[in-house]
Order: sequence, then structure tokens, then C-alpha cells
Amino acid sequence: MLNIETPTLLLDKDRCLKNIKHMTERATHYGISLRPHFKTAQSLKIGLWYKDFGVDKITVSSLLMAEYFADDWKDITVAFPVNILEIIRINRLAEKLDNLQLLVEDSSEIEKLNTCLVTSVNILIKIDSGTGRSGIKAEDISTIKNVLSRLEQSEKLKFIGFLTHAGHSYKARGLAEIIKVHNNSTSLMRKLKATFINDYPELILSVGDTPTCSIADDWAEIDEWRAGNFTFFDLMQWQIGSCSLENIAVALACPIVAKHADRLELVLYGGGVHLSKDSILLNEKPIYGLLSKLNDNSWNLPETENYIRSLSQEHGLAKVSKDFFDSVSVGDVLTVLPVHSCLTADSMKTYMDFEGNAYDHFIGHY
Amino acid sequence: MLNIETPTLLLDKDRCLKNIKHMTERATHYGISLRPHFKTAQSLKIGLWYKDFGVDKITVSSLLMAEYFADDWKDITVAFPVNILEIIRINRLAEKLDNLQLLVEDSSEIEKLNTCLVTSVNILIKIDSGTGRSGIKAEDISTIKNVLSRLEQSEKLKFIGFLTHAGHSYKARGLAEIIKVHNNSTSLMRKLKATFINDYPELILSVGDTPTCSIADDWAEIDEWRAGNFTFFDLMQWQIGSCSLENIAVALACPIVAKHADRLELVLYGGGVHLSKDSILLNEKPIYGLLSKLNDNSWNLPETENYIRSLSQEHGLAKVSKDFFDSVSVGDVLTVLPVHSCLTADSMKTYMDFEGNAYDHFIGHY
Repeated sequence: MLNIETPTLLLDKDRCLKNIKHMTERATHYGISLRPHFKTAQSLKIGLWYKDFGVDKITVSSLLMAEYFADDWKDITVAFPVNILEIIRINRLAEKLDNLQLLVEDSSEIEKLNTCLVTSVNILIKIDSGTGRSGIKAEDISTIKNVLSRLEQSEKLKFIGFLTHAGHSYKARGLAEIIKVHNNSTSLMRKLKATFINDYPELILSVGDTPTCSIADDWAEIDEWRAGNFTFFDLMQWQIGSCSLENIAVALACPIVAKHADRLELVLYGGGVHLSKDSILLNEKPIYGLLSKLNDNSWNLPETENYIRSLSQEHGLAKVSKDFFDSVSVGDVLTVLPVHSCLTADSMKTYMDFEGNAYDHFIGHY
Repeated sequence: MLNIETPTLLLDKDRCLKNIKHMTERATHYGISLRPHFKTAQSLKIGLWYKDFGVDKITVSSLLMAEYFADDWKDITVAFPVNILEIIRINRLAEKLDNLQLLVEDSSEIEKLNTCLVTSVNILIKIDSGTGRSGIKAEDISTIKNVLSRLEQSEKLKFIGFLTHAGHSYKARGLAEIIKVHNNSTSLMRKLKATFINDYPELILSVGDTPTCSIADDWAEIDEWRAGNFTFFDLMQWQIGSCSLENIAVALACPIVAKHADRLELVLYGGGVHLSKDSILLNEKPIYGLLSKLNDNSWNLPETENYIRSLSQEHGLAKVSKDFFDSVSVGDVLTVLPVHSCLTADSMKTYMDFEGNAYDHFIGHY
């Protein structure tokens, strides 16, 4: 049994390996090249597991994160609008890696980037295929042509394709809605490919959100997936329909510090600084995690009647059934399946598996 | 001018010192002993500023955080239900400090604690004065008597008073609502004092949320404040009415990485892993921060029309006015006033002031 005294992020290694295996097999099945997003686990040690499944290139969400992985991985896409203020870091990475790939979406940075780069880098144009966050709208061919023509004039920037993140799939609930987002997003990307393939015969289409990569089965013309969350999954993905509760591979272990019988609530040591503050609606109420008990090798599957109803900085307040309430004591350790595993992992900055091994997490900006 | 390349938590030292000075003066004015909560700044260096204003004791929210401060501060209340699993840490702290004060609310842990403690510690009973998070209900005299009688039988646990956190003041908006929460909460606490003062003539009442400590003026019978957020304040406190925008002492500096003229939006490098995901409603929409520009010594006061409308892991999406949009470029650095400064500081784990000095932040569980 693990010795847990304070909130601890547990990693179920078997589930995580199954998730990685499943996604690499799906990619192979559809003839897609997998470039997993490492912003979920942000771990060198967990990252290496991908190599056993033939993965040789990755995606990250910042240049700092690219540096973290640059000893192990030589082919990295930084899937974030290029931040010209980090030009020193960009040049250092371009020299160290075999292939550094950057995103542009705003033509104003292209000239600066070209002037300041020491070596050439590959460039993907960020496309907004419906999410409305970042990227050039897929239908906005004139802006895309303008960016392409600027790239043509920039000898150090080599255009290699279009990249999108169908992040609006996170608002989908259930198969039909995921597929609808998928069809809209991929058809926009296919049109782009058709428009520019004659001028750029090698251009790729890179997509990759966990819901569509987990569920959809029409991937014609798509070349690359960048999904990442599937490494762990979480309650948000479960609610969307990307996974089942059995697939979730991380859980926060939290000591019970008080019980309140009058309202069937437990006070847990485990709050917003541990889980992060993302929530989902369950039965129209926001919840911050589902509660279950540890067993020797993992945690039990949670029942939805046992959930975190509110989080403050260090406290988690859990609402539980009468049976559950009566079966636990102050000093017991429970597990909380997180709503958003990427942010929980980023808050905790380390993992422990059921053999007591620790795993690193990128600590980044400090 | 500061050299900022990536999201950086800026500290306006003058504002912070003014906030500390103001609260210590208020405490003196009302004859209250101030034991500031250090879970906001979580910084040794910032913590020392309090000593210049005569503060000699502090509050923290975990035993780990108490260890962090134990070289500088010898009188620490851990304002969190005692976690018996950390008994080794408790004993280490009890030995190292002059005065370690712990909270109990569940009588089940009292006997265990007494058995395992090496030296004596002071105990406060956690009272729920209306928040409904943790603590024994203030009206529940029989449970309180039961806990007191168990404490009497525990030679290493010395009862010193009642502690509450009127956290429901965070739901108040404006002076009248804050005062209503304050009056309810303090009158419950006064009744408790009246009930038990004959048996425990030295017992103290410890309270302390930033809204009531900033605003209320009837503090009869209250002995101690434990407010902490006032060190920095934030948009939540501004919305509650505890402070003005001029008082907020931290802001996240974020590079602009893209502009979208069609929807007057800026894409910032600065997301949920930097700001945390707490939001407030402004004009009935959730916002995650207010945007403004840097100047030489600080940041300008923000206009409410320029705000963060959504956060993903590393992206912040800002909605701005036409004038603001036209006045900024990709590569500029803007500042974001945070919704909840405690969680933003906890996410960033370091600060920088306008002279370029770095400040530590507790890194805790890893």
C-alpha cells in the first residue's frame, strides 16, 4: 500500500499505456502520422513510453516546453502562435533539434522572424476551423494567400502545411455532436488542401483534439494527429464521450480531514491548488471531480453520487451517499478523478504510480 | 523597462506595502491582533515586509506551508482541519516553533493526535459561522461541549479559542451585503464567547476574511484577524467591494501573439496554467482578468471593456475596444489583473517587481 500523507497525483500506469497503445493503433489503422501533444503529461519519463509504440515526434504548447523535451525528442511542433519575443530560445531550439516546427497566423511576425532566425524552420499556418480561438479562418483564402506569399519571400521559413485544433469538440456531448464538429472541421481543411496542393504538393493537414481522434472514422486527406489528453483522459472527456471512466489514468489522492453527517459531506485535503478549478455540469450542478476509494493496484470506479461540490484553495468539499459516508473515516485517503487532467497535472507537477515510483513534470516558468 | 518574454507575474511593491500598512493600521485601530494569512503571497521575501509593521505571527493553510515559513516565523496557526496523517511533520513543527496552533473540528482525531504528539500544541476549534464548508456549526453547542471535554482529557492539546472563516462574504456584493455577513458571523462568535468565557477566561475569537476585515467597523469581542488576500487584492475583491482597482498589487504580464481584427480579439501568451481558471461575472459574462498596458513603474488602470473572455491551457483570449485594439501590436506585452490573486500566484510560483527583482513562492508538494 502506498504511503500517502498529502494530496498526491496517482498514475495508473497500465491504463496510461493502454491509452497510448490504443491511440497509436488507431492512427496506424487510419494511415495517420501521430505527433502526440505532450502538454497533458508534460513528463520526460511518461513521454518515453511513446517511443515503445513507434512515436518519433511530438507536439508541445510552448517554447519552454520544447526545451524541456529537446534532449529526448528531435522533431517538435510548438502548437502555439509563435512568440517573437523568445527569438533567442527559438534559435537555440532550431539548432538543437533536427526539426523545429512553428505556427504563424499573423503575417506581421513573418518578416521579423525571418530576419532574426539563424537557421531555417518549418512553418505551419494556424487555421481556425470553427473554434474561434486562434488561427486564420479556413474560409479566408485571401489572408492565407497573403501569408503564403510572405512566407515565399522569407528564405528561412519553409511552409509545410495547415494546422488546426477543433477545440469546439470540447463543447460536444455524445457521438453525434463530436462527429458533426469533426465533419465540419475536416471538410474545411480538405478544401484548403485541394486549393493549395498544386502549388505545395507536399503540404500536410495536421489536426488533433482528443474527442475526434478517439471517435471519428473518416480521416481522408488528413496527415497528422496531435491529440494529447487521451494519455490520461478525464471527466471532461468522459462527459464528451471520448472515453469511459475505466480509461482515466490519473487521480488525486486526498486525505479526509473532517466529516459532516448532517449534510453528508466530507472535507478533503485537496483544493484548487491541487485539482485546478475546471468543472463540468453533472445533473445541472458544477462538479470538480468524482470520488472513489483506493485499492491495492488502482482506484475503484467512482459512482456519480459521490462528487466534489466545491473547491477552495486547499479544501475539497465532497457530497457523498449515506453508504459511502458511513464507510469512511477521518484519516482515510480517497481518490478524486479530475475534471481536466492536463491542469491537474500542471498544478501537481509530479506523479506517483502504484509501485511508489515518482514521475517528473515540466515546471516551466519558474 | 523590464525584459519580459513569457508570462511573468509582476508585483507592484508600493501597492503591496500600502495594502499591508493599511490593514495593520486598521487592526491597531480596532484593537485587533493581526495574524495575516500567508496563503496569498506564499513568499518568504514578501512575508518579511510584515515584520516592519510589527507583525510577529502568521496563518498558513497547510503544514507544508508552515514548514516553509518556520525559519522566519515562530508563531504559526495552520488554519486547516488537522491532518493526522502528517503527524511526523506536526511533531517536527511543534518542536521547531515557539507556538504551533492547530484546528480541530472532528472529535475523532483528538485522541489520536494526543497519543502521537511529542510536545503540547495550542488548539482552536473550527467554527462554521455560516459558510457551510468546514467547522462545527456555531449553534451546535452540544458538539462543541463534547469536543471541549475531549480536549480536557488530552493533556497535549490546549484549547485556546474559536476560529471561523466567514467565507460566504465572498458571495457578497457591495458594502451592505458584506456587513450583513459580518454581523451574522460575528454575533454567532460573540455568543460562543459568552457561553464559554467563564470556563475559559482566556479564550480568543479568531476571524478573518478580507472583505469584512477591509470594510466592517464593529469588532467588539473579536481578538484576532487572519485575512490574507488584502496583501495583493484582485478582481474578485474589487467586485465584492473590498478594494478599488488601484489597490491590486499583482498583474500577469502577457505577450500578444496574434490579433483578430474581425472580432476585436487578441491572443495572449498566458492561459489557465498561468492565471488559474477562476472567473467573475461582469455584465453577466464570465471574465478571467482585465487588460491594461505597462508603464515604467507599474501598469495602467484597466477599463472594463478590455477583458479576458476565455482561457485555455496556454492561451488567453482577450476582447478589447477598437481603440485599444488599434493601439497594440503583436509582440507587445500587456498586463492582466487576476480574478483570484492567491491562485494566480500559486500557479506562477514566482514574482518580479519593477526593478527586476525576483521573489520566491512556496512550491510545496513537489
